[in-house]
Amino acid sequence: MSLKIGIVGSGNVGGTLGRRLAQAGNQVAFGTRRPDGPEMKELASVPGARVTSQEDAARSADVILLATPWPATRAAIQGLGDLSGKLLLDCTNPLKPDLSGLEVGTVSSGGEQVAQWARGAKVVKIFNTIGYNIMDNPDFGGRAATLFYCGDDAEAKNVAASLARQLGFDPVDAGPLQQARLLEPFALLWISLAYARGLGREIVLQLVSR
Amino acid sequence: MSLKIGIVGSGNVGGTLGRRLAQAGNQVAFGTRRPDGPEMKELASVPGARVTSQEDAARSADVILLATPWPATRAAIQGLGDLSGKLLLDCTNPLKPDLSGLEVGTVSSGGEQVAQWARGAKVVKIFNTIGYNIMDNPDFGGRAATLFYCGDDAEAKNVAASLARQLGFDPVDAGPLQQARLLEPFALLWISLAYARGLGREIVLQLVSR
Repeated sequence: MSLKIGIVGSGNVGGTLGRRLAQAGNQVAFGTRRPDGPEMKELASVPGARVTSQEDAARSADVILLATPWPATRAAIQGLGDLSGKLLLDCTNPLKPDLSGLEVGTVSSGGEQVAQWARGAKVVKIFNTIGYNIMDNPDFGGRAATLFYCGDDAEAKNVAASLARQLGFDPVDAGPLQQARLLEPFALLWISLAYARGLGREIVLQLVSR
Repeated sequence: MSLKIGIVGSGNVGGTLGRRLAQAGNQVAFGTRRPDGPEMKELASVPGARVTSQEDAARSADVILLATPWPATRAAIQGLGDLSGKLLLDCTNPLKPDLSGLEVGTVSSGGEQVAQWARGAKVVKIFNTIGYNIMDNPDFGGRAATLFYCGDDAEAKNVAASLARQLGFDPVDAGPLQQARLLEPFALLWISLAYARGLGREIVLQLVSR
């Protein structure tokens, strides 16, 4: 399969994906607001690729790959003209500039709500991201299932992590309680993969490093 | 470490965790609204465990493990009395009854916003959950990194998945575009682990089944 791919936003993400998509045999147009900028020299030399305006990259493309920083996303899309029927791969994330949260979508969490209701308690969010079958047996071929937790009290988190280890999990500290805004959608992802997507309950999202 | 653990909500999650925590040597009190209910017989026979009211389970505990269905959570907490200084493990998720979303916290997504701005385009959310270093090389010891994507147009999703495979990813369909409400917090989890938690960028959350 060889496609014409128009990159809108050719920074780290768009640049890397475009370069590799060109290497894989696609025709890639790197769209940028500054086609003549010195930072585009390297991408311009990629075989099978060219550098152009964002609008031109999108106009001639089978597939538009959107990789703009969130604050630039709306204006970038509006500069592309008519997109009817176009296939657009959205690689953006609505991150706050300091990476402390999302600009869109997440506004609170059950964990924070529980902490309000349980006034004075030291709340740790844990054991919420996997089904009870995994709680029963967290062994995946000799590897302990990853278990994320978060909370604001260091001692409480240590106890929570110790209990998780007692049960055979590999506990991973995901930060303060506000991170429940990430771990609860994470739980719903597990649920939707197991049920709606038909993968079944014997799955886990495992933290792997290299 | 042996602790007194009070389970509040002794269904599948609380029952499984409490049973295994008792097996690990802790003293477990299974708190339930119906201590005499027939469904509690099995838990009552777990060595090192007893069945009691939710309030009693919490009162005598070093650690409260909250595992109620979300609609019952507020009343359950309010029935526990003073929780000052208590360590509370929150295992709940604010799921909508039909598992279609979260009652708290997630209300929209960048992906849905992009689809509104890019009127008429067939939007697939993809390549948003991992850093560009993983985009450059998705190989983790011979295993292709998992890449979740979502969207509402089947053909567009097939193209997106094919491109991901060209780059060496293992693409996993996470469902309709609204699932961006899960994949964007997932992205922020990756970012916060890589940076704020200090794990570095050479990590991935890998879908593993057994």
